[in-house]
Amino acid sequence: MDFEAFFKSELDGLHSEGRYRVFADLERHRGSFPRATRHTPEGPREVTVWCSNDYLGMGQNPAVIEAMHEAIDHCGAGAGGTRNISGTTHYHVLLEQELADLHGKESSLVFTSGYISNWATLGTLGQKIPGLIIFSDALNHASMIEGIRYAKCDRVIWKHNDLNDLEAKLAAADPKAPKMIAFESVYSMDGDISPIKEICDLADKYGAMTYLDEVHAVGMYGPRGGGIAEREGLMDRLTIIEGTLGKAFGVMGGYIAASTALCDFIRSFASGFIFTTALPPTLAAGAIASIRHLKASPFERVRHQDRVKKLRMMLDQQGIPHMHNPSHIVPVMVGDAAKCKWISDILLDTCDVYVQPINYPTVAKKTERLRITPTPLHTDADLEHLVSSLHQLWSRCALARQVA
Amino acid sequence: MDFEAFFKSELDGLHSEGRYRVFADLERHRGSFPRATRHTPEGPREVTVWCSNDYLGMGQNPAVIEAMHEAIDHCGAGAGGTRNISGTTHYHVLLEQELADLHGKESSLVFTSGYISNWATLGTLGQKIPGLIIFSDALNHASMIEGIRYAKCDRVIWKHNDLNDLEAKLAAADPKAPKMIAFESVYSMDGDISPIKEICDLADKYGAMTYLDEVHAVGMYGPRGGGIAEREGLMDRLTIIEGTLGKAFGVMGGYIAASTALCDFIRSFASGFIFTTALPPTLAAGAIASIRHLKASPFERVRHQDRVKKLRMMLDQQGIPHMHNPSHIVPVMVGDAAKCKWISDILLDTCDVYVQPINYPTVAKKTERLRITPTPLHTDADLEHLVSSLHQLWSRCALARQVA
Repeated sequence: MDFEAFFKSELDGLHSEGRYRVFADLERHRGSFPRATRHTPEGPREVTVWCSNDYLGMGQNPAVIEAMHEAIDHCGAGAGGTRNISGTTHYHVLLEQELADLHGKESSLVFTSGYISNWATLGTLGQKIPGLIIFSDALNHASMIEGIRYAKCDRVIWKHNDLNDLEAKLAAADPKAPKMIAFESVYSMDGDISPIKEICDLADKYGAMTYLDEVHAVGMYGPRGGGIAEREGLMDRLTIIEGTLGKAFGVMGGYIAASTALCDFIRSFASGFIFTTALPPTLAAGAIASIRHLKASPFERVRHQDRVKKLRMMLDQQGIPHMHNPSHIVPVMVGDAAKCKWISDILLDTCDVYVQPINYPTVAKKTERLRITPTPLHTDADLEHLVSSLHQLWSRCALARQVA
Repeated sequence: MDFEAFFKSELDGLHSEGRYRVFADLERHRGSFPRATRHTPEGPREVTVWCSNDYLGMGQNPAVIEAMHEAIDHCGAGAGGTRNISGTTHYHVLLEQELADLHGKESSLVFTSGYISNWATLGTLGQKIPGLIIFSDALNHASMIEGIRYAKCDRVIWKHNDLNDLEAKLAAADPKAPKMIAFESVYSMDGDISPIKEICDLADKYGAMTYLDEVHAVGMYGPRGGGIAEREGLMDRLTIIEGTLGKAFGVMGGYIAASTALCDFIRSFASGFIFTTALPPTLAAGAIASIRHLKASPFERVRHQDRVKKLRMMLDQQGIPHMHNPSHIVPVMVGDAAKCKWISDILLDTCDVYVQPINYPTVAKKTERLRITPTPLHTDADLEHLVSSLHQLWSRCALARQVA
């Protein structure tokens, strides 16, 4: 077989479908985020980033930066081993205490990414608990889907956020089988929020564990940034809360918070936890500083919501169609892969506005969109520039307006 | 089902088999590695680390530390997104150029860990190449095994480093089926080295791609630290070289180096690459500095081999049984799980020597060991203290000696 020809032909397929991804080569500037330098063959250009998951700008928070510097000076660069073989530093221990406290759980366990925390935890539970059935929301993230596949246990997909469908499927399953309901709080692409309380009620009724992915909520919701479950007073009803250190906390890594026995079980059996180098101490230190800051400071959360509200209002004034949802994610709908990519390119090349097009398979065809994530650091002038740029483009390519 | 009781009973099983892992809570000290502070309930103690995978001490190299500080000051903490959605910084671009150059390949692709690079690359190739058969060495790392399982393609396990068995299995397979041979250069637990040239010869004969994991070799072997394949002049014969930034390079992350089309294919299709937050710029910057340093400086490699040789000689003088192999890994054989754990505890608690016991399932039962990894920074006095501590323990618990 000519492997090279095979790879090239598969890539040609992506090009012809308009799905080939080109990464923007950026240099973020500490102290002036959301500004960044974009490296192009024609030279560097200043852009404003509108699609970062550093939702609160904590990646440049002085306490985070200082903690990271301090840990590098104190301990050096990497952890030097897996958690078991010399890679557990005191920062990891403190970080896990901080996360357990954040979610009101006995324990927590840190992974190298949110992806791995979902994959390893769901995979290990599904493999090890005899007969476990995982009830998975239809729009769960790729890492949850891969984890559930990895588990090779029985899985039941229920319609997105549909309590009737979930209950029908729970009721249809063997009453004696162990069960787990796996879902997210804020869904990344539509920005909608799940009915956590009602799902927990069903879990109680049918004896199921609950697994809640809060990666798009931790740091941003709840009085201490514990997520939607904290805001709703529901953290104690969830068996496992999964979160990330790489979005609102501004660093990198993932985690679960749960009972001591459950965390110890995953720690002891999950291949994706055991056989990988631990997070560098500097990342653990930065994450601790970020979590502590957001536990105490509502400022970023208030300002974040204010920016989101203002952007929505300005989009409505111009009739730019965007999905209304109760979160901080503002999906501006285009509904065509080629147009979505084209608009994104024009925004970047002529308006210095960077927002990545979101096409299939990340979202369904005909729902292609610009996924805009305002941060507390976007100014009024930034908002005006973004919306007037979109306004001009909407006229130029005759895209449908929406009545406000 | 009582989930908590289930988790506790599984953990009880580990305790009773002597396989329950307790993580040492360490604080490494930049500038005085391999020294670290061990946090215990009774207070802190100074220990010497003898089991780190920061094989060359690059985690405290001044150029690495300076590059990490600079990147934090310049760009902030995290990458803020996936590689596609705002997470590609200029440091990632430069790092991938540096790695392609290190291995003499057209391209490279950076992942969040070596685990993920193996899992995502093997998994994606096995899923996407129709009819691919992966021929996997029996002692391949957990992340390779999980990747091949994830692929759900046909897999054939060949006896560890056994060319006759490999050839018999290649010859028995459908001649028209696309094939890949997946193996490592230095095997982590025994420290033996695979016959790369002969395996490439078989790959040529049977039209197979080759996938070589060099995580325990990059930085440490070859004139520029390109690994065993560089030392043997074989890099161009391998389709894919996989490596890590988290061991000899002292930071964190993993990568593949291969043709442009292959790297672009994995970049475009691998879930574990696409749907996860990119490495923080500071880690990419630290890795670049580390790779550049080790490309130019043979000092660390020469001193490393000198320390390994000296330790082996001293162990031989005392008759402490250790596995002879051609690498830098010194497995001191105990052959009993409980004794292995006990020796490790005594070394830590009374000699301030930290070396983690390696028990089943990481190695086979009856081959339990202390896996010792001397670094260029271990002094003659460190070696003497280690060997005299082992000597006393060997007498104390009547362990077999080995004739030198």
